[in-house]
Amino acid sequence: MSAPVDLIDRLRLIRTSGIGPIAYRQLLMRFGSASAALDAIPDLAGRGGGKPPAIFAKDKAEREAAAVDKLGARYLVLGQGLYPRALAELENAPPLLTVKGNLSLLERPMIAIVGARNASAAACRFARGLAHDLGREDVTVVSGLARGIDSAAHDGSLESGTVAVIAGGIDFYYPPENEARQKEIAERGLLVAEMSPGTEPRARHFPYRNRIIAGLSDGTVVVEAAPRSGSLITARLAAEAGREVMAVPGSPLDPRAQGCNQLIRDGATLIQSAADVLEMLRPIGGGVASPRAPFEHEAPLDPVDADEGIRSRVEELLGPSPVPVDEIVRLAEASAGSVQLVLLELELGGRLERHAGGKVSMAA
Amino acid sequence: MSAPVDLIDRLRLIRTSGIGPIAYRQLLMRFGSASAALDAIPDLAGRGGGKPPAIFAKDKAEREAAAVDKLGARYLVLGQGLYPRALAELENAPPLLTVKGNLSLLERPMIAIVGARNASAAACRFARGLAHDLGREDVTVVSGLARGIDSAAHDGSLESGTVAVIAGGIDFYYPPENEARQKEIAERGLLVAEMSPGTEPRARHFPYRNRIIAGLSDGTVVVEAAPRSGSLITARLAAEAGREVMAVPGSPLDPRAQGCNQLIRDGATLIQSAADVLEMLRPIGGGVASPRAPFEHEAPLDPVDADEGIRSRVEELLGPSPVPVDEIVRLAEASAGSVQLVLLELELGGRLERHAGGKVSMAA
Repeated sequence: MSAPVDLIDRLRLIRTSGIGPIAYRQLLMRFGSASAALDAIPDLAGRGGGKPPAIFAKDKAEREAAAVDKLGARYLVLGQGLYPRALAELENAPPLLTVKGNLSLLERPMIAIVGARNASAAACRFARGLAHDLGREDVTVVSGLARGIDSAAHDGSLESGTVAVIAGGIDFYYPPENEARQKEIAERGLLVAEMSPGTEPRARHFPYRNRIIAGLSDGTVVVEAAPRSGSLITARLAAEAGREVMAVPGSPLDPRAQGCNQLIRDGATLIQSAADVLEMLRPIGGGVASPRAPFEHEAPLDPVDADEGIRSRVEELLGPSPVPVDEIVRLAEASAGSVQLVLLELELGGRLERHAGGKVSMAA
Repeated sequence: MSAPVDLIDRLRLIRTSGIGPIAYRQLLMRFGSASAALDAIPDLAGRGGGKPPAIFAKDKAEREAAAVDKLGARYLVLGQGLYPRALAELENAPPLLTVKGNLSLLERPMIAIVGARNASAAACRFARGLAHDLGREDVTVVSGLARGIDSAAHDGSLESGTVAVIAGGIDFYYPPENEARQKEIAERGLLVAEMSPGTEPRARHFPYRNRIIAGLSDGTVVVEAAPRSGSLITARLAAEAGREVMAVPGSPLDPRAQGCNQLIRDGATLIQSAADVLEMLRPIGGGVASPRAPFEHEAPLDPVDADEGIRSRVEELLGPSPVPVDEIVRLAEASAGSVQLVLLELELGGRLERHAGGKVSMAA
């Protein structure tokens, strides 16, 4: 079965080096289709003052789609069909996800359970029990298939429904000892990957994976996390997305409890049991996850080209230090849409970098 | 040295059965002196429709004062001299305290550390270390000289300054194995008792002691407490008095951590170190313990007698279930002072009981 043309164009767009999820989203909003966006890129990049990016070749996109098909996996397309609504709310939502397994798990309330790879046996036991108890209440448990807490959370919810989000391609087993677990989740749960098949996960991929874990879930529970660990990044991303952040406390004498205790000091809800999580999930009357506000700058891009005055004002406002897009819009005294367009052009021209928290800087 | 007459009168007033700290305070406010209050009691009790209480005999009061003197202890009188200002803010502040030791400890910031008698060795070690670290910052550590956490807190702060509040008389050693510790605190720290010398502590005395611990302190730290334990009562009393409530977390797998974890869920500040406590104590610029609002019903008693209309309305509003004094004032449509007077008369006549949280009921 050959993939629909639009999917191939979307694949070419997001797999093009230098086009991230935000540029992808803005291109689609401006041009209405991936095909039209691909055609427009050379001009946009030229106005941004740079060399246009080398578009990902059509035959490579077709080979990737065929590989996904052969793996028994499929794509979820941002804004279409079964793509999870909660994840779509992220400003940098992944344009395409490769998924394999039971898609109906995405239709239930979802809670992420994450934590340290080198967690204590007691904490792993707690995570497994928590996942199990949440599963009995028809909650889907999401985690990252890492060693330690993540594996325990998947094990506890394998029967009831577990979603594993991995940093590499859907067919890449990492860590190697989790190969059997990953295969089993692809059969009985749901396996989710943002990168293309065959991709070996790199350090920079893990925060991307973490945003998917946080973005899929109504709330994130952290079980044993060291200060400055990836689990705390997931917690921060969950908070930024307006989701519940929960943490399991521990003795101050146990260094592995410090990250969670600090999260609680900073406002995370202390969790002792599945009942505590469900209370967060269903505050009144059983309703889950009220619709959230759209992102501030999701204004449609200006239909007309940005004039040169706006372009030069925006360029002047950008420097090597990341600044919020909000601030540039305000200082440029222009519409959000026209500022976004200038930023997009600069990005496609390779002259702009995007940073966490909606910030941008000139490319180094 | 014989005790001043006013002290003897105050002793007679508070040691009279049926006169608690609230009636004591209101009698002094209304009549200006303990002596005048003693004279007025028969009439007041008569208007309250009951038999007047048997006033504590003068010679017994004199014997108690002599005993306190002989023990090397002294009294602190509510509203006078060195009586701690923070404690005086409690509606049911003890009218008299027997104290022995270093009174200057009352002039520093004070933090209570309380917890389970059967605490884990790790929690006792934590309490001792926390007390020690607070002591190094010139904080006086207050506790209740019980087994477990209390003893550890005293031990950690014996060098720097510790205050032990005991449930029985100042010369009664309880628990027996703490005799040496109690004697050492009376020498190097400060020992505080509300009951008269020789009093053996009873179950009902412990909540009284707990209110003194909470009331003396700018904040209370709970270290390991079972659900429904005395330490949680102290925490509640601290919260009611507008003081900081802090708790040390533990693993949900440890049943001894459940009380503290629940306190944190209910809004107590999670504490991992002395630095966390000091942050509470000195939120901005090093200042400690801003003056607190007076109690709502500390209106002076009405100078004229309450008329019969008010008396009968108040009596009608009272029943066997405790109701807040606030509510009676509102429903009686009378001044707070005149309602308080009627309640005082009923109490002295043995027809009213006072309950926690400013509630009253008809006596059973």
